Amino acid sequence: MQNKLNEIIELLEKEDNFLIAGHVGADGDCIGSVTALTRILNKKNKTARAYLNKESLAPFAFLEINESCFFTETESLAVELKNQDYILLVLDCGSRDRVDLPEELFNAAQYVINIDHHEDNSLFAKYNFVDSKRAAVGEIIYLIAEKLISTLPQNIARSIATAIITDTGALRYENTTPQVMRILAKLMESGVSIYRINKAIFGSISYPALLLKSKALATLKRSENKKVAWLYVSREMIHEAGTDYTEGLVGLARDIEGVEVGILFTEEESHQIKISFRSNFYVAVNKIAAQFGGGGHPRAAGATVQQELNTTIESVVKEALKHV
Amino acid sequence: MQNKLNEIIELLEKEDNFLIAGHVGADGDCIGSVTALTRILNKKNKTARAYLNKESLAPFAFLEINESCFFTETESLAVELKNQDYILLVLDCGSRDRVDLPEELFNAAQYVINIDHHEDNSLFAKYNFVDSKRAAVGEIIYLIAEKLISTLPQNIARSIATAIITDTGALRYENTTPQVMRILAKLMESGVSIYRINKAIFGSISYPALLLKSKALATLKRSENKKVAWLYVSREMIHEAGTDYTEGLVGLARDIEGVEVGILFTEEESHQIKISFRSNFYVAVNKIAAQFGGGGHPRAAGATVQQELNTTIESVVKEALKHV
Repeated sequence: MQNKLNEIIELLEKEDNFLIAGHVGADGDCIGSVTALTRILNKKNKTARAYLNKESLAPFAFLEINESCFFTETESLAVELKNQDYILLVLDCGSRDRVDLPEELFNAAQYVINIDHHEDNSLFAKYNFVDSKRAAVGEIIYLIAEKLISTLPQNIARSIATAIITDTGALRYENTTPQVMRILAKLMESGVSIYRINKAIFGSISYPALLLKSKALATLKRSENKKVAWLYVSREMIHEAGTDYTEGLVGLARDIEGVEVGILFTEEESHQIKISFRSNFYVAVNKIAAQFGGGGHPRAAGATVQQELNTTIESVVKEALKHV
Repeated sequence: MQNKLNEIIELLEKEDNFLIAGHVGADGDCIGSVTALTRILNKKNKTARAYLNKESLAPFAFLEINESCFFTETESLAVELKNQDYILLVLDCGSRDRVDLPEELFNAAQYVINIDHHEDNSLFAKYNFVDSKRAAVGEIIYLIAEKLISTLPQNIARSIATAIITDTGALRYENTTPQVMRILAKLMESGVSIYRINKAIFGSISYPALLLKSKALATLKRSENKKVAWLYVSREMIHEAGTDYTEGLVGLARDIEGVEVGILFTEEESHQIKISFRSNFYVAVNKIAAQFGGGGHPRAAGATVQQELNTTIESVVKEALKHV
């Protein structure tokens, strides 16, 4: 069942002890939303703690997440919560199996509140607020902040801005609405530098990642009709570059003038190929992904197949060409 | 002398015949501002014509600049204006010699109005409105539009958005203010797709340009202290890729984590090397450029030397290392 945002806000007003969690492989929307909501509740004199996987935190040093309410290992969190009544708030998770939290901490909660913006959210909690028109969960957290606290401290504003900037691709994706622009205007007036957040998230790349990008670009190919472009990352390239960071690589193919579908093949293991699809204007790439047991959105989708790299490329490109 | 924006708006209300011009090598702010203001004045039942250099227009096909008030060659414009009294509006030109208009058409104007946002504008006209706090001249045109017309037709809104998006680097530069965000929110509500404008200006690359990028990336090197990174484009690579488009390549080096100075060497001709410098936070690269007879800004500068490629790389990197 779906709830109204006001009902969720009432629960946040009423309850006193919260645990907040995001999804596995947390991104900027997840980390920004989790840290913002935790800080908002603590500012309201509630007890709010959050679990954040240490490995996901590295790129977000600029968020200065150093309060003791943020736990990066589950053992001490379990000790802390033992024999306590707490409400679990789950952010940016389309389904229960996406939640990054040990089973026992999930089950020990009095009840669960699920706040998300994924259209296909399975409404797995007792209380669910899912608004797929929102660009980011961070946008929903902003609306909650407006109701709960009078002014936005800079560290909360920065977390929310990070969430929104991540999921709108620095305001470049189609989910960027006038509402998003106005929220960012207000966050900037709280002292947030959009420039520095953009630079931290999208404006820098590690040397190994750039090496891998260079190697991947060297494999770039385009179909004869110029509408499909693809590139790949092999085990060997990952080994040579010293990283498996492939963020943004599929966009290199999609962004070629005249190309409608861009595809990246990543050899995760021998005979295990991850396929990432992106399209520009009219091809529903989730339908192509479905042919290979995957899924996703019309403009961004993916699949993983147990096959050899070259065979995969051949069959996937052939299928993609049917759609352009 | 500087005038107030209201005085300029009064002149626009009072006068009836305008010629509008931008700067040589017109960019998105220039073309967006010139087309928007021309359309605004025509919508007010004024006679407004603009001159736009044909060569600058190619990337801006999406602005649908096809009204007869836009002249792309000066001969027919001169015929049209012969024996007419007209006011010349000059946009985005820091000095008179930047104005892209034949001398005789400049001199034949009754008087000139100069609207700009360059801090060092020489106030060369009878009336000058220069506001260096504005991210783009397009932002000033938006303020004029608000006063002159009640609703913004989509083609005017799109021109203004293009101007702002260009000069803020898709809202990524430090000049992006809360005011800019709110203007974009309103332009989006006039039906403008920021997504499509971003895509047209920053989100696409030609296949040859991407090939050249791939070849350039393969030459990337980083200094032992990891603070200087450089790459090059040789005559041979330009020949193989089929383009000499090097926009954005120097940024690949600058955007590496930990790098302070990024350098691109372009072999324009045998023994003629163009050097492009970028820095992130503290090195004044115009001082390095000056060592090689060039100049520019503290974070972006350049020089051209008559030397062999490898020799140039060696001496320039050696010099750059003294600054980090």
